[in-house]
Amino acid sequence: MAKGFQTLPGFRDFYPDECAARNYVFEVWRKVARRYGFVEYEGPILEPTDLYRKKSGDEIVNQLFCFQDKGERDVSMRPELTPTLARMAAARQRDFKKPLRWFSIGQHFRYEKHQKGRGREFYQFNCDILGEESVFADAELAALSIDLMREMGFTAEDFKIRVSDRNAWTNFAEESGVPEDRLTAFLQIIDKMERAPEEKTNELLKEFDLDLEKVRAFIGTGADASDTLKDLIADLTSRGLADFVEVDLNIVRGLAYYTGAVFEVFDIGKGMRAVAGGGRYDQLIGLIGGVDMPACGFAMGDMVITDLIRETEAPNQLLDAAIAGAQSVDVFVVIADEERRADANKVVQDLRNAGWDVAQPLSSVKVGKQFQAAEQQGAGFAVVVGAEFPEVSLKNLADRSESKCDADELVASLSSLAPAK
Amino acid sequence: MAKGFQTLPGFRDFYPDECAARNYVFEVWRKVARRYGFVEYEGPILEPTDLYRKKSGDEIVNQLFCFQDKGERDVSMRPELTPTLARMAAARQRDFKKPLRWFSIGQHFRYEKHQKGRGREFYQFNCDILGEESVFADAELAALSIDLMREMGFTAEDFKIRVSDRNAWTNFAEESGVPEDRLTAFLQIIDKMERAPEEKTNELLKEFDLDLEKVRAFIGTGADASDTLKDLIADLTSRGLADFVEVDLNIVRGLAYYTGAVFEVFDIGKGMRAVAGGGRYDQLIGLIGGVDMPACGFAMGDMVITDLIRETEAPNQLLDAAIAGAQSVDVFVVIADEERRADANKVVQDLRNAGWDVAQPLSSVKVGKQFQAAEQQGAGFAVVVGAEFPEVSLKNLADRSESKCDADELVASLSSLAPAK
Repeated sequence: MAKGFQTLPGFRDFYPDECAARNYVFEVWRKVARRYGFVEYEGPILEPTDLYRKKSGDEIVNQLFCFQDKGERDVSMRPELTPTLARMAAARQRDFKKPLRWFSIGQHFRYEKHQKGRGREFYQFNCDILGEESVFADAELAALSIDLMREMGFTAEDFKIRVSDRNAWTNFAEESGVPEDRLTAFLQIIDKMERAPEEKTNELLKEFDLDLEKVRAFIGTGADASDTLKDLIADLTSRGLADFVEVDLNIVRGLAYYTGAVFEVFDIGKGMRAVAGGGRYDQLIGLIGGVDMPACGFAMGDMVITDLIRETEAPNQLLDAAIAGAQSVDVFVVIADEERRADANKVVQDLRNAGWDVAQPLSSVKVGKQFQAAEQQGAGFAVVVGAEFPEVSLKNLADRSESKCDADELVASLSSLAPAK
Repeated sequence: MAKGFQTLPGFRDFYPDECAARNYVFEVWRKVARRYGFVEYEGPILEPTDLYRKKSGDEIVNQLFCFQDKGERDVSMRPELTPTLARMAAARQRDFKKPLRWFSIGQHFRYEKHQKGRGREFYQFNCDILGEESVFADAELAALSIDLMREMGFTAEDFKIRVSDRNAWTNFAEESGVPEDRLTAFLQIIDKMERAPEEKTNELLKEFDLDLEKVRAFIGTGADASDTLKDLIADLTSRGLADFVEVDLNIVRGLAYYTGAVFEVFDIGKGMRAVAGGGRYDQLIGLIGGVDMPACGFAMGDMVITDLIRETEAPNQLLDAAIAGAQSVDVFVVIADEERRADANKVVQDLRNAGWDVAQPLSSVKVGKQFQAAEQQGAGFAVVVGAEFPEVSLKNLADRSESKCDADELVASLSSLAPAK
């Protein structure tokens, strides 16, 4: 019966191992964002569909989990956070001192073909600086993205931040005679160029009286292409982060709304994937929220980064350690004599009151099985409560050493053996 | 323009203060659950609508955010977690040693009238023990719920755990001649009794050849009504938690699927609200997942508990401190001379590398304004980088003391003044 219930395609069950892995990524995101003075916010998972139409046009609706609610509102499960951020920041812009440094960790939904590294739901870290037009804000975000990767155990051998400038491309397009209303179409060719056959790109560029040679010559100018890039690189260099950064004008980022520096965190191993990306979008908050506010930001999803952690030795070890830590207890209280359960309960509660993570058997279980359970739960110590109570024995499960003490002295004994919590 | 975008009714924007409050509640939930040896899991926010029909019947659909997705599946935003838990636990029951101690923190959705303490979305802490039929598992959950409240700063003056036993009611109903197929209708009268006029209850009870007097006489038997209750109280008493518990047979909990001990965390102030509740449900995993597994669990939502924290002095202070802590930085680096930005960047990065939370101005800002920003961001220290670089000054913003040191020695100086991170 009822065996038919399955997780919907593209959705994930997070069993304890997977939930611990997810939480580890969340905690790195949160810790590094806090280190950069960012504060956390969150918006609703359900929003009016028009909020996304306003930003991205009608085509976006094809990728949305959208429906009419019981009040006949057209609503969508959010595919991204930026429109919500724009709405929220504009609505209360007078309440906060600029610049805002805001981050968010939340779930998002896109109805698209389910494939590796892309589900119909995913978590995303969003990190934005609002109300600051200086390129130092862009540099702060790029630095933050580098420190996210370093905190996860990645090195300059594993990833690079590729930075570029939308304005430099806009200027190049203008100078090359690309009509303003065709700029987006032109940038889409550049965006796809790295993965497309040369002939195809040349064919497409011909419509703009351009060819790969001219485009590549421009890309070759690197940081000389704009003051923004020079300032951005200088800022990151002064932070000691030059090893992690390279100017790469191949990067344009597909989205139409970028207006300045753009960047990508790029896996330089065999995967060659973009792990995160973002840039400056000075017009969008005005468009959605009706309040002019310069802004820049980036996002990192949980799926590609988790794949990359799994494929990379040091980050993978950190993740495994976090998964083990999130599921282990400090102490397992063994009830060697079921008659002593009430006394064991007192011991358990005393330990928990002192802040230790503690498990115990919840029915009569053989002592051998209890020790097995202690090991399975990664307990550092076992406390055996038996007929000798109030004397209890304290076993260090790592080095197999053992001592005895009075139950009243247990918390003190344990604290002297293991780091205080 | 575009001012029309508003949060959907019953949905919340979490600006930084509100997000910090939410995260504080999450952290207490998580910390105490870990202290009890529970591990975290999470399921999908979207599930097949039939999963909820199976558990709760067709009426539930009226309260769901349900729709057809683009693949013509009938799907719903989850109104609760238990059916997902049952599905997940049944699907991989062989992979985990029983009993499972599992908890989850996630968002849920109900399309219902929007009112105080009840939104269309809410977060819920779910905590369940699966695969253990002993009443000691029920006691473990009741104890955990008590420690959640204590961790938030509540005392025995603020709340009680009211425990009852569904089986005791089933036995009473049977002995009183209530037909088995009308048991749920009978229990619903008892469930509403505390808030209904006496005459109305008497009227309803008449259909069962019962009256308030007989029902109250049964309620008066208290813990004598069942061995389950006696064992539950004895267990909690041995943990030193007797002050927080009372047997109250008025509690039946509305849901049809409970099969043993049930309990409620009850606000004994003027609010008189149920803050959390749960009980034993030994049949449900079989019904939904096709695998027999005894189970008990409880849930606490974020909205009522946050209201209660706000109304209670000590818990409210803890919450306010957490909100301030989640938004403050350790150090604000003041750039007294914009020419020294590159040097200041190095200082900022060194501090962050050492684990400090640091902010700095992202454009040229007057020094006075920078100190204001430092205070607004709750910085404990300001480091002033100016023309004297590499000498920097270190100001303790709490006691206004000041010292000077070389930039290279700053991390060491700061670590000697403030607790290491």
